[in-house]
Amino acid sequence: MEKVDLADAFDSFEQQWAPRLAAEPNDQTVKLARIEGAFVWHSHPNSDELFLVREGTVTVQRRDREDVTLQAGQLFVVSAGVEHRPVADGEAKILLFEAADVVNTGDADSDRTSETVPLE
Amino acid sequence: MEKVDLADAFDSFEQQWAPRLAAEPNDQTVKLARIEGAFVWHSHPNSDELFLVREGTVTVQRRDREDVTLQAGQLFVVSAGVEHRPVADGEAKILLFEAADVVNTGDADSDRTSETVPLE
Repeated sequence: MEKVDLADAFDSFEQQWAPRLAAEPNDQTVKLARIEGAFVWHSHPNSDELFLVREGTVTVQRRDREDVTLQAGQLFVVSAGVEHRPVADGEAKILLFEAADVVNTGDADSDRTSETVPLE
Repeated sequence: MEKVDLADAFDSFEQQWAPRLAAEPNDQTVKLARIEGAFVWHSHPNSDELFLVREGTVTVQRRDREDVTLQAGQLFVVSAGVEHRPVADGEAKILLFEAADVVNTGDADSDRTSETVPLE
């Protein structure tokens, strides 16, 4: 693979809630996503999910737990099986780190399920 | 775990070439390191290693392959088993993603081997 420049990579797409695949180390994936508004509640039974915010503000909501609000340069891991919902007031740019077979909507039955698209 | 603020986390230690553990998603590790100068040539037989530069400039040297120079906001994966050596002219702050059992000097016999220390 070539190196990935995050600024160029985020500039290469506009679609929200449609993760782009940036790297695949060790059967894991590093994905880039633009998000805005509230996603669907879901969980990933077999994968932790790391959120790292590059731009904007993201609140990670979890059932029966305190919300975690992340600004640029902050990261947080949602453990496997924990139902959660990311919410961004304005558009946010985030990096996700999770297992290679994870679908964005996890176990939720949702029309927001999106294939992960390779970066162009 | 709590959220990790990368600026605070990097400010919490000064030692170079001594990775701090920031998160452990899916039997992988996210480590933070301050590096400066040239490291030892080494490889990790069983783990890819992702470098993401937060500050400074890092050149990833590999035997018989072109050097890859990374600025802030750029990432690159060194595949498992590939002998490599990171070099930073001034101090650089980097994030590493790699398998949980990886030692910083890999297969090299070196006095620069360092345990990974949890963030305080």
